[in-house]
Amino acid sequence: MNGFRHVAMFRWVEGTTTGQQDEVAARLRELPGVIREIREYSLGADAGVNPGAYDFVLVADFADQDAYLAYRDHPSHRAVVDRYITPIVAERASIQYTT
Amino acid sequence: MNGFRHVAMFRWVEGTTTGQQDEVAARLRELPGVIREIREYSLGADAGVNPGAYDFVLVADFADQDAYLAYRDHPSHRAVVDRYITPIVAERASIQYTT
Repeated sequence: MNGFRHVAMFRWVEGTTTGQQDEVAARLRELPGVIREIREYSLGADAGVNPGAYDFVLVADFADQDAYLAYRDHPSHRAVVDRYITPIVAERASIQYTT
Repeated sequence: MNGFRHVAMFRWVEGTTTGQQDEVAARLRELPGVIREIREYSLGADAGVNPGAYDFVLVADFADQDAYLAYRDHPSHRAVVDRYITPIVAERASIQYTT
């Protein structure tokens, strides 16, 4: 594949409920229907295999960097980040790379 | 897709050379030819779009958790980790999830 991939991992703050985590996943899953630049969108919670793992990950694929930037800055994406993610984030790790 | 995905991000220590980073990528790229449990294997260096991003990422897909564990503990993988990755890692973030 030739494209551009965004990967983000999160640790949630202590006391985050499963309801809050499910809400994040549900809201993010709506974005591919709203933001046409998203080519593939995969997310999930840690399987609990390794100690020290992050809690949640998102892997999103785009045609190119511009398409990623359109997603990053899209109001529907920002609304999910601001309303559902930022309030429960303890730590975030991210990277973007050409695939 | 139904499978099991491993995602790992790294920050390299200050002073890490591009040669060392290229060596990590080259050695990892040999693993799909050696470890039959690897279904898909994608890796790359940060594109430099966002400040604070990690330096390097690996996204590896497996049929299931057992296949991932076979990879994680495979001597050829451990050798790359011990010889080329561990000496230059400043920070590591990882997660495994069902896709």
